[in-house]
Amino acid sequence: MYRIIKTDGRAKRGELVTVHGTIQTPVFMNVGTVAAIKGAVSSPDLECIGTQVELCNTYHLHVRPGDEIVRACGGLHRFMNWNKPILTDSGGFQVFSLAGLRKIKEEGVSFHSHVDGRLIFMGPEESMRIQSNLGSTIAMAFDECPPSTAEKDYIRKSVDRTTRWLERCKAEMDRLNALPDTVNPSQMLFGINQGGIYEDIRIEHAKRIAELDLPGYAVGGLAVGESHEEMYRILDAVVPYLPKEKPVYLMGVGTPANILEGVSRGVDFFDCVYPTRNGRHGHAYTNRGRLNLKNERYKTDERPIEEGCDCPACRNHSRAYIRHLLTAGEMLGLRLMVLHNLRFYNRMMEEIRDAIEAGRYEAYKQEKLAGFALGAED
Amino acid sequence: MYRIIKTDGRAKRGELVTVHGTIQTPVFMNVGTVAAIKGAVSSPDLECIGTQVELCNTYHLHVRPGDEIVRACGGLHRFMNWNKPILTDSGGFQVFSLAGLRKIKEEGVSFHSHVDGRLIFMGPEESMRIQSNLGSTIAMAFDECPPSTAEKDYIRKSVDRTTRWLERCKAEMDRLNALPDTVNPSQMLFGINQGGIYEDIRIEHAKRIAELDLPGYAVGGLAVGESHEEMYRILDAVVPYLPKEKPVYLMGVGTPANILEGVSRGVDFFDCVYPTRNGRHGHAYTNRGRLNLKNERYKTDERPIEEGCDCPACRNHSRAYIRHLLTAGEMLGLRLMVLHNLRFYNRMMEEIRDAIEAGRYEAYKQEKLAGFALGAED
Repeated sequence: MYRIIKTDGRAKRGELVTVHGTIQTPVFMNVGTVAAIKGAVSSPDLECIGTQVELCNTYHLHVRPGDEIVRACGGLHRFMNWNKPILTDSGGFQVFSLAGLRKIKEEGVSFHSHVDGRLIFMGPEESMRIQSNLGSTIAMAFDECPPSTAEKDYIRKSVDRTTRWLERCKAEMDRLNALPDTVNPSQMLFGINQGGIYEDIRIEHAKRIAELDLPGYAVGGLAVGESHEEMYRILDAVVPYLPKEKPVYLMGVGTPANILEGVSRGVDFFDCVYPTRNGRHGHAYTNRGRLNLKNERYKTDERPIEEGCDCPACRNHSRAYIRHLLTAGEMLGLRLMVLHNLRFYNRMMEEIRDAIEAGRYEAYKQEKLAGFALGAED
Repeated sequence: MYRIIKTDGRAKRGELVTVHGTIQTPVFMNVGTVAAIKGAVSSPDLECIGTQVELCNTYHLHVRPGDEIVRACGGLHRFMNWNKPILTDSGGFQVFSLAGLRKIKEEGVSFHSHVDGRLIFMGPEESMRIQSNLGSTIAMAFDECPPSTAEKDYIRKSVDRTTRWLERCKAEMDRLNALPDTVNPSQMLFGINQGGIYEDIRIEHAKRIAELDLPGYAVGGLAVGESHEEMYRILDAVVPYLPKEKPVYLMGVGTPANILEGVSRGVDFFDCVYPTRNGRHGHAYTNRGRLNLKNERYKTDERPIEEGCDCPACRNHSRAYIRHLLTAGEMLGLRLMVLHNLRFYNRMMEEIRDAIEAGRYEAYKQEKLAGFALGAED
């Protein structure tokens, strides 16, 4: 289902065929936490900004509206009117970071809902059942997400449990896909490599999960406190031990520079809340770094956020207008910022794919990084 | 500039030619308080929902971003990228209702900004200068807006002052339009009839302001506490005394039923925050009355808000999805609700114009009112 079209160093230009269409990689997935991208961005809007994959959060959708409701509405694709690929996370990350975690056991995790405080149990089987109800294109394995800098002994025990959980995820996903009334009988399961900042644990774990022959593998538990250099070091170490004929997904990463470095290290899939979250805070990504659109200096600036940008904000509106909207607390300002930032990320991925195809990825990366360093506000 | 195409009883089908295009009447203006429609709706969105005129608030724009900023950006049309007609109110209503009113004098009004508390003075000349900086298509006269049920003696004195203020508005607008660097040298000034619920004062005032030969006249100070029946009685009494060859604007009104009744009484222009405000609260307008989309009963309802509606919400999304978005506090839910409600109002105005042209306005009105009474949630 995944094939590499071209390599350039360790950078890969590939494609993943799914029942919801073919994903051109490297790809940046746009995060729609509760089946909607924050900033009043709808599925039809995503067509305009070149989104290939929308990522939705299993934990959030389980809590609200409830995965049974989504299933009753025909699954996530139909529920949010998006017919391209959707990846759902496992819920694990939110359970370990956001919810009121109560207890980790071999069976799974008990925690309190952040909405109404009710006690919820989630283990590998529960996560798979929820994701099966959602009917996403790609489901993620349920794993433990300890801090990347946790003690080595803890990480080792945690990774062992994550491996056992992955085996249970695979068995349950196979069972669910074979049911006659399943929403998406072709749902794919990606495994997740863990091991914190310890290369030996990461590599050992990569070898073990590779044996399960899953359609894709993620590197998880990074970008949660360690430095960028540590993250790159881990990628350098572990990616070569993941199956070469499968796509690699670096979870929750990251800045444009992080993505450029990730591609250099063989990563195919990325996702991050930065473009949406930073957009809502008034920060716009450009090829010369970030702009703070709330800045007084833009109050009569009739230029678009970035000259030449083809996003709905830049095609129609000035910095002065967007600054006014942000200052006045108008929702439209947030929407325009989010559309711009997502388009910036999506377009950068198009450039990355073109550069790999042209065999000039490292030169492209250096030019791009040099551009970011120029400073957009100078 | 205004001509009547067809009459049907006292209902009028007309058009007002402006430098920003021709307005087909009766028309419902869509309220974009601070140069944006609340609910993340942009100027290009308005093209999709059939908006003819956007109404912006002079007081809000004076406070933020400041009318001098808007002027420096080429005026409101260019600032918000909307090339069709814009009507600006005078600021008076907000000063009398929203701001911290300090003192009314013959010269004008002192009040505190609701944003930073600074003391602002606004009289007829200041209001005209601000609206001239904004460069709207139609400017409204600066008037006093007492409660419609105030004592008759107070209303009489207030109306006399409003007449004197209107004369000053006209003189100042004429002067500003003649300046070489004015944003819109063809800016029109509409006068405003006041007089509370007292028919004799209303009629006397209508006669006086009619003499000023302005391009349009509004009925102000209604829908602020009196009953619908009182409002209709005042319209029945006063509209015949406004110039027949000029458009009539009923300010701040109202429900779909209010609009249907207003058209029967010769009104051409309407505006109201109901479709946007109620939309943001989860209330959707339909031809069978209103739906509360937050209601549990819609949690798996795959129908659009209203079958056959051509708005972006109904064309793409289900009640179940919109209910979920509203419940989860997602901005997209508010945007979809506002787009639906504005489209509902704008489409009703299209039907009203068609019905007048077909000479069956009263029959249409009765059918429409009967539909609203059916109950959308039954």
